[in-house]
Amino acid sequence: MNDTPPAQGPLGRAPGPGPTNHTATLCTREPMRLDSGGELGPITVAYQTQGVLNAERSNAILVCHALTGDHYMQGPHPVTGKPGWWEIVVGPGRVIDTRRYFVICSNVLGGCLGTTGPREINPATGQPWGLGFPVITIGDMVRAQALLLDHLGIDTLFCAIGGSMGAMQVLQWAVAYPERVRAAVPIAGSWRHSAQNIAFNEVGRQAIMADPDWSGGDYLSEGRVPRRGLAVARMTAHITYLSEPALHRKFGRKLQNPTGVSYGFDADFQVESYLRHQGASFVKRFDANSYLFITRAMDYFDLAAAHDGVLARAFQGTKTRFCVISFSSDWLFPTAESRAVVRALNAAAARVSFVEVTTDKGHDAFLLDEPAFHDTLSGFLNGLAEQAGLPPAPEDPS
Amino acid sequence: MNDTPPAQGPLGRAPGPGPTNHTATLCTREPMRLDSGGELGPITVAYQTQGVLNAERSNAILVCHALTGDHYMQGPHPVTGKPGWWEIVVGPGRVIDTRRYFVICSNVLGGCLGTTGPREINPATGQPWGLGFPVITIGDMVRAQALLLDHLGIDTLFCAIGGSMGAMQVLQWAVAYPERVRAAVPIAGSWRHSAQNIAFNEVGRQAIMADPDWSGGDYLSEGRVPRRGLAVARMTAHITYLSEPALHRKFGRKLQNPTGVSYGFDADFQVESYLRHQGASFVKRFDANSYLFITRAMDYFDLAAAHDGVLARAFQGTKTRFCVISFSSDWLFPTAESRAVVRALNAAAARVSFVEVTTDKGHDAFLLDEPAFHDTLSGFLNGLAEQAGLPPAPEDPS
Repeated sequence: MNDTPPAQGPLGRAPGPGPTNHTATLCTREPMRLDSGGELGPITVAYQTQGVLNAERSNAILVCHALTGDHYMQGPHPVTGKPGWWEIVVGPGRVIDTRRYFVICSNVLGGCLGTTGPREINPATGQPWGLGFPVITIGDMVRAQALLLDHLGIDTLFCAIGGSMGAMQVLQWAVAYPERVRAAVPIAGSWRHSAQNIAFNEVGRQAIMADPDWSGGDYLSEGRVPRRGLAVARMTAHITYLSEPALHRKFGRKLQNPTGVSYGFDADFQVESYLRHQGASFVKRFDANSYLFITRAMDYFDLAAAHDGVLARAFQGTKTRFCVISFSSDWLFPTAESRAVVRALNAAAARVSFVEVTTDKGHDAFLLDEPAFHDTLSGFLNGLAEQAGLPPAPEDPS
Repeated sequence: MNDTPPAQGPLGRAPGPGPTNHTATLCTREPMRLDSGGELGPITVAYQTQGVLNAERSNAILVCHALTGDHYMQGPHPVTGKPGWWEIVVGPGRVIDTRRYFVICSNVLGGCLGTTGPREINPATGQPWGLGFPVITIGDMVRAQALLLDHLGIDTLFCAIGGSMGAMQVLQWAVAYPERVRAAVPIAGSWRHSAQNIAFNEVGRQAIMADPDWSGGDYLSEGRVPRRGLAVARMTAHITYLSEPALHRKFGRKLQNPTGVSYGFDADFQVESYLRHQGASFVKRFDANSYLFITRAMDYFDLAAAHDGVLARAFQGTKTRFCVISFSSDWLFPTAESRAVVRALNAAAARVSFVEVTTDKGHDAFLLDEPAFHDTLSGFLNGLAEQAGLPPAPEDPS
């Protein structure tokens, strides 16, 4: 187990290859079947890999990203120039050690960073898909990932891991392709989207669709961008990613101008300025229609629905090893939802461990420097890797 | 103590006069001083009364309304035609028994149902105030209420009571006019607006200001209404008024069309349809600029600010009797905030009782049929009324 804090890991001495970004064109012979009954194809999948696939092809970890994530686990991000979203976890010497594992992350179907989605051109019209893009599901996203693994010649994943919507994909993987997933780590997730979360998503969608620049979804063809609506959607969602204690700790009622309030509608409070910044920077990197389609996929997610509401049946006979992780201050995907997944896994006689990490960082803790979370993760992965006979990462010569 | 469930109270046999609606023009000789340093006047205050003021003028209860409330405790509401917002609590034979008390509720300063606010005409321009209206505070709202009481010849309130922003006004009353408030009942409130609540308010304001029909605040002069932005603001806020368990109980993942989802962006889930309805009906009765000004007043509210952050000092020497009430599932104004108020009152040696009502109804429980809350309220008021020598309400002859 690597106890080095990730941010201080021996990045400069990484023996494995750095991250590489790729695209694959899939479904060239026949289109992909969608849960809606429709078909889509060929499709493009943009993905990033880091590390080296071993000869047995047994060390692959699939990282599933969240709603507004992408495949840039490692940066620089092509739009923002910033570090990747999971650099703190994935890399040589880090929790998911790319000297030991071959790590893959693909931009989800419906995304806007290279994988087929509403921003891409519909070959039938020569115009961006927009609202003409088929409504997709978490199942469809995972089906596209399975096709990518076929393309890469990887039959079985050592592990599928992800937080938030990534956790939904991880659970979907375990249910749809149980024989292809040795271990599954759903973090801060659920087996179905709750009424409150559907409500928050709906508010975001209404904010986007209320923006005249959204233009019925045709803004790209018309050279417009629904910036204001998308920013409001992001600001609302962003509040749900944090916890009240974290907001209080970070901002409290601190003013932008310590001498006093302005008696106006400028950003008097630091928390207002922070939110506005979150909204403004988000619209530069994300597509409004992608936001609609991906939130809809989350809303539709319900693993128990096909089993008369009995979640345990979805996992019947599974051989996958599960490590379910939640965060104590996460009110978007509260621990109770992870517990329900664990109960169902127990009822299905699955091998499952469960950790609720105590933190005030809220839902976004899976993206942050949260040592107890990282320890849980590396403990689980290292134990599993030893059992699977994966050679340890090379010793740090220092 | 009246144990009759309010909804079944002997309304038809009410001995006291029914509710009457009034307006008063105040500050005709000199304008009202505002916390911003500005002045405003004359001002109009719209208010409703029910019951009869006794000869000693000692039985007056001031009801303070919440963000989107108004003075129509009793309906019919002039815009919606619906019952008043607190009919379940206020009326003959009800918890706040108008056969015993003279009950007053005024539309807050900055409101949009008759009291001076951004929708009213600015006499200096002959146009609606719009953003030219001065930014007001909870202190200003309460100052206007005090002027109204002067106008009515009421020196001391038997009780000031209100939920949410109403609780802010109640606490402000107790701090600004301690000698004029015999009892104070702040329900589901706080002594200052939290970072998370400022954040939610800011999202609502941004949604309104992002609507092109808001038109820099001048929509009224231009014959427009920022319906979409105001609806998004309302939908976001509405989620915060409920609890996750209540949303789950009421809606869960129930579909509008039980045969399945539409694979589209119509309201597939009942919770979406409910939210859209909340947004659409709100914009018919509320003014977007009022929403901006009133949320701003809430954000600015911090009773401890003038006392170096030590809330107890704000209550030093108070003789007011307090009954602080919170709801266990309220995450907008969680019990912890009421507890902090109670701690400060204890530290100031005030007489205070505190009840956390166990309910899954969330913040909005103060508006709903919540028997444990109503029992708490009538118990406190009846005890106080006996002590004060107010004659009991006439016996029900049946």
